[in-house]
Amino acid sequence: MKADLDRLMQKRQLSAIVVAGDESYSDVRDYMSNGAHITGGFIVKKAGDDVRLYVNGMEIEEANKSGYACKTYGDVGYFDLIQEYPMEEATVRLWGNILADAGVHEGRVGIYGVGAINVYLELVERLKSTFPQYDFLGESGNPTLFQEAYLTKDPQEIDRIRTVAEKTNEVAALAWSFIASQRIQEGTLVNSEGEAVTIGTVKRLIRRELMERGLEDTGMIFAQGRDGGFPHSRGEDNEALKEGQAIVFDLFPREMGGGYHHDMTRTWCIGYAPPQVQRAYDDVMEAFNIALETYALGKPTYALQEAVLDSFEAKGHPTARSTSNPTEGYVHSLGHGVGLNIHEAPSMHHLRRDDVFQVGNFITIEPGLYYPQQGFGVRVEDSFIISESGELVSITPFKKDLVITLEG
Amino acid sequence: MKADLDRLMQKRQLSAIVVAGDESYSDVRDYMSNGAHITGGFIVKKAGDDVRLYVNGMEIEEANKSGYACKTYGDVGYFDLIQEYPMEEATVRLWGNILADAGVHEGRVGIYGVGAINVYLELVERLKSTFPQYDFLGESGNPTLFQEAYLTKDPQEIDRIRTVAEKTNEVAALAWSFIASQRIQEGTLVNSEGEAVTIGTVKRLIRRELMERGLEDTGMIFAQGRDGGFPHSRGEDNEALKEGQAIVFDLFPREMGGGYHHDMTRTWCIGYAPPQVQRAYDDVMEAFNIALETYALGKPTYALQEAVLDSFEAKGHPTARSTSNPTEGYVHSLGHGVGLNIHEAPSMHHLRRDDVFQVGNFITIEPGLYYPQQGFGVRVEDSFIISESGELVSITPFKKDLVITLEG
Repeated sequence: MKADLDRLMQKRQLSAIVVAGDESYSDVRDYMSNGAHITGGFIVKKAGDDVRLYVNGMEIEEANKSGYACKTYGDVGYFDLIQEYPMEEATVRLWGNILADAGVHEGRVGIYGVGAINVYLELVERLKSTFPQYDFLGESGNPTLFQEAYLTKDPQEIDRIRTVAEKTNEVAALAWSFIASQRIQEGTLVNSEGEAVTIGTVKRLIRRELMERGLEDTGMIFAQGRDGGFPHSRGEDNEALKEGQAIVFDLFPREMGGGYHHDMTRTWCIGYAPPQVQRAYDDVMEAFNIALETYALGKPTYALQEAVLDSFEAKGHPTARSTSNPTEGYVHSLGHGVGLNIHEAPSMHHLRRDDVFQVGNFITIEPGLYYPQQGFGVRVEDSFIISESGELVSITPFKKDLVITLEG
Repeated sequence: MKADLDRLMQKRQLSAIVVAGDESYSDVRDYMSNGAHITGGFIVKKAGDDVRLYVNGMEIEEANKSGYACKTYGDVGYFDLIQEYPMEEATVRLWGNILADAGVHEGRVGIYGVGAINVYLELVERLKSTFPQYDFLGESGNPTLFQEAYLTKDPQEIDRIRTVAEKTNEVAALAWSFIASQRIQEGTLVNSEGEAVTIGTVKRLIRRELMERGLEDTGMIFAQGRDGGFPHSRGEDNEALKEGQAIVFDLFPREMGGGYHHDMTRTWCIGYAPPQVQRAYDDVMEAFNIALETYALGKPTYALQEAVLDSFEAKGHPTARSTSNPTEGYVHSLGHGVGLNIHEAPSMHHLRRDDVFQVGNFITIEPGLYYPQQGFGVRVEDSFIISESGELVSITPFKKDLVITLEG
């Protein structure tokens, strides 16, 4: 969590960190600016010192919402630099002025943030040759400083996460009710006017309801039949919903404009479930419950994945452990951390053995089975927080029923 | 445009380009994959050859929508690599396998895309030491290969842009009508129940209407009074709309999930405009028309900015040319290119002298005046395409009236 930043910097012997980037949404910028909606700028933290923001003059009001000390580029001499140097050189010199202003005069400077890779690869070469007193460096991880910080969430973050979870569960329930209130005509779901209800119709309803609650969709999956057999196929908008087809519905919105996510998946069959889908669903639910039973605070995260792999393999499903490059069976890992990114540490892959369950973890558990050639996939996913007392607490209370029985 | 890629690669003596990145939305990935919604992977183009995609097996169906040859990581030996090497080393080796598979065996390899800066700074160091047969490089621009490609849009892009423009104009008109249908009570805009209409109410309406049309807001500005005096202040959701205050409304949505933008700004006063706002608006509209009159195909883009600077300075407004670091008057440049990014080349800054107007440019013209201490800002912005015949064609037909007269 944020309180760990100085410790995490010390571990990496960093004199300072600089969060740079461009107009892309940046989790690190969001985290370090306390959610201020700046679209550029530099966030500097000298070891042992408070965070400081340096922004384009146009963004100073927004930057001030961070609660940290903020200056404009103009305040640190940018307008003199662009008179004196060509634009690219002025940018390099601006970095120097900002570091000096933040009291960073030498040492290892970690560069973080999200941006155009090509730009930073070249810019950092220029920084290195212009300012030899600093050692500029990146970090590819496992884990990076911010991945480590994100591993646990502080109470302010948990509050925001719980709010997102509550709203997401409401929207999932509305999607269920909407489908349940339609009727079947010749195997197709139709509305009261007899028009086919499409995946696009349902997705639009969901996005509207998310938006009303201050959330935004980040690419939900609503994939029917064979499409649901590919874990990341998102479903086709113009496809009509059909009776007796497995629908994989994976909803992982975040706070509007960027922020914390909630991640949940349900598998639904309208009207009835074919026997092979029901069996896969039962195996997935058994795996889900095995994962919960295997959990203990301080245990390695891969232990849950291994317990689930054992269960699926015992039932004859191919897995990512039994087969290289599987396209059928249990093809992914059990879950992942969530936060400002939809995928964060801890990992729950059987080959990643670094993480143990800690208080403040925010994770998913999402076993699934995929049989595209048989025309279906099944996945069930809740999000969990590890509470102060070390319990794995679901924040996804919405029911896990497979079959949506129509009301009509 | 895309047809220029080989020429642009040759100019940079590149043997290949690799578009990498992570789950962040990436304009370059979107561009090179023809809009396929992959959330990772590698897009490789060898000089003179077709584009190829390499993705996680879970994304192969989505990748295939690009219309290019697609392979999974498994197809190029990733599962052997992760058995043989630690995860980070396996990632480096995967790059080697992909380049070899694409027939790239040596030479300059340009790395592009959007991702965590820290990750790529370190990864590229590893690539350089593992594969000395390649010269891996970034490019910080002015312009980069993709900035140059984006300078002009091809007919397929223009079609998509026109559709986004049409829908955005519709939504701006709905926002106007919504406000016009309310009434004033003691200086505050209220609805039929007498409840104050807030900025949040209007923004929610706009986001809903965008969404119904398959567009997403990317951070619209709806800033009233003093807030509108800071060009990038977005406005406060809980603030009630007031009579006689200037509202700067800057709407720049894009296709849902990432895609082409349209960018427009209107300044509105509900009921009446105070004289100082009306004067600023008149000066802005005069500058707007001067920009249009100054335009000619092949002319340097800065010529329009200079004409507008001349006009504003003649009327006594401080500008970014007359004052360093201005916070009042005309504080930004006249416009910018638009596309998959809200800010692209060409620049229209008076200090950027590289660009001339070309067929296929998609740009904004947006003069503005900012007087936060007097409690207002004014900006008017249309988007334009330069047509095959070299004309500057507005794609923002919505009226530019300053005063919203209430219907009631």
